[in-house]
Amino acid sequence: MNLESVVSEIRKKQSFLCIGLDVDLSKIPAHLLETSSPIFEFNKAIIDATHHLCVAYKPNIAFYEAYGQDGWKGLKQTIDYLNNNYPEIFTIADAKRGDIGNTSRMYAKAFFEDLGFDSITVAPYMGSDSVEPFLEFNEKHTILLALTSNQGAFDFQTKDNTNALLFESVLDTSKTWKNSKQLMYVVGATKAAYFRKIRDIVPNSFLLVPGIGAQGGSLEEVCKYGLNTEVGLLVNSSRAIIYASNDRDFAAQAANKAKALQQRMQEILSTT
Amino acid sequence: MNLESVVSEIRKKQSFLCIGLDVDLSKIPAHLLETSSPIFEFNKAIIDATHHLCVAYKPNIAFYEAYGQDGWKGLKQTIDYLNNNYPEIFTIADAKRGDIGNTSRMYAKAFFEDLGFDSITVAPYMGSDSVEPFLEFNEKHTILLALTSNQGAFDFQTKDNTNALLFESVLDTSKTWKNSKQLMYVVGATKAAYFRKIRDIVPNSFLLVPGIGAQGGSLEEVCKYGLNTEVGLLVNSSRAIIYASNDRDFAAQAANKAKALQQRMQEILSTT
Repeated sequence: MNLESVVSEIRKKQSFLCIGLDVDLSKIPAHLLETSSPIFEFNKAIIDATHHLCVAYKPNIAFYEAYGQDGWKGLKQTIDYLNNNYPEIFTIADAKRGDIGNTSRMYAKAFFEDLGFDSITVAPYMGSDSVEPFLEFNEKHTILLALTSNQGAFDFQTKDNTNALLFESVLDTSKTWKNSKQLMYVVGATKAAYFRKIRDIVPNSFLLVPGIGAQGGSLEEVCKYGLNTEVGLLVNSSRAIIYASNDRDFAAQAANKAKALQQRMQEILSTT
Repeated sequence: MNLESVVSEIRKKQSFLCIGLDVDLSKIPAHLLETSSPIFEFNKAIIDATHHLCVAYKPNIAFYEAYGQDGWKGLKQTIDYLNNNYPEIFTIADAKRGDIGNTSRMYAKAFFEDLGFDSITVAPYMGSDSVEPFLEFNEKHTILLALTSNQGAFDFQTKDNTNALLFESVLDTSKTWKNSKQLMYVVGATKAAYFRKIRDIVPNSFLLVPGIGAQGGSLEEVCKYGLNTEVGLLVNSSRAIIYASNDRDFAAQAANKAKALQQRMQEILSTT
């Protein structure tokens, strides 16, 4: 998918919401556990109830791997369902991969070709040749970890690295990589104070912003410094939406939560 | 598995060889493709032919994910076969994971509990709370990327980070994390010049060393600075061993390559 389509979908829906699909069988409604594919049935219900309120879905791959082959099957069913029924939706494999070149190439093949995701999150620690294999795929996007939403981000990411903070070096250096215009960046909402600096380095890139909702970041703060002329933000919420209820009305309750966020986004878009 | 058992196995076999199981269906002998589980049949043959020459196996998870559910099934069959038939062997999931706490916990569950690996490789970029969930598992080991074997390692890992190179900060900081004695480190053989400095920071830790073989690092150089009184090294070779031949004699040829490395290791152990 090209990013113009994402922007046009954002304008149409007045939403830059990404919904994180972190399926935990201990948290989903009990009646779904009796179906042949509880992971997929849960996601399908959430997707059908919320697709008009968001522009992206982000399955968190750990939650699928934790269920082995069944998890992988549920992941495949979910991405197929999205691609077949809602091709206008941008899909993100939240996998945080990154390895030597021939291995990154296998991950890229797995997520872009076999599963059919539009994008994947990738860790920068191993440098250019660990990321470039992902960038070789046309109309696929690589979302590089820059400044993450967790407390551990302060261990290395914000340390002074050859006269720039490490995450600034990551942003800056990554711009020199081949096909770098297919890069997007993960920037945690819990670090809103850094957004201005980030926009100085990557004014035009899309940022995937986790950390509002359960992790406590502020949507308004993020938008104040993060929005650009093409919107340039995908703001994610996972647990606060998908686990709004664990009763039979879970999908409707998830839609209510998503709607509330979409309305705040519409308000923000109308005043900027 | 505790590390005393690994050390005792190294002494017994006079080998600190780890064999990387990077199964690529385009490279394995054609006759295996007709079996019901080519990935497992390939690994089983390699394992049966080489287990007496090595102390660890390291499936590279990307190569399994690239084959979707079949790949995951082959991975599960492989680790079950190892645990059931060769419980003295140390197993490494080369996965390079790392995410916010609740997600790292799911990855730890997937690889340590469901699959039953002894250890997993983890990327440090997201800091303490992305690694500590892996360290909570008793007798399981977390192998943190420190200095990797690829060219991209020079993009960030060797940059000056608050008065230390980034990989030195990673080594140093990680020692303060909870249960840090369950940490091991990835240090690429292609960066042998740094080994002395690394041993100053983590004199007693086990180092997993990729990069000899196809990537060109020197076993002797690595041992010169990397060995400690408990050996403290697991040296990996993948492609150079498992793809020694793609004919019906592939397992015997792999054993020949492994034997040659084991003999160089025995020689090194006898003279240090």
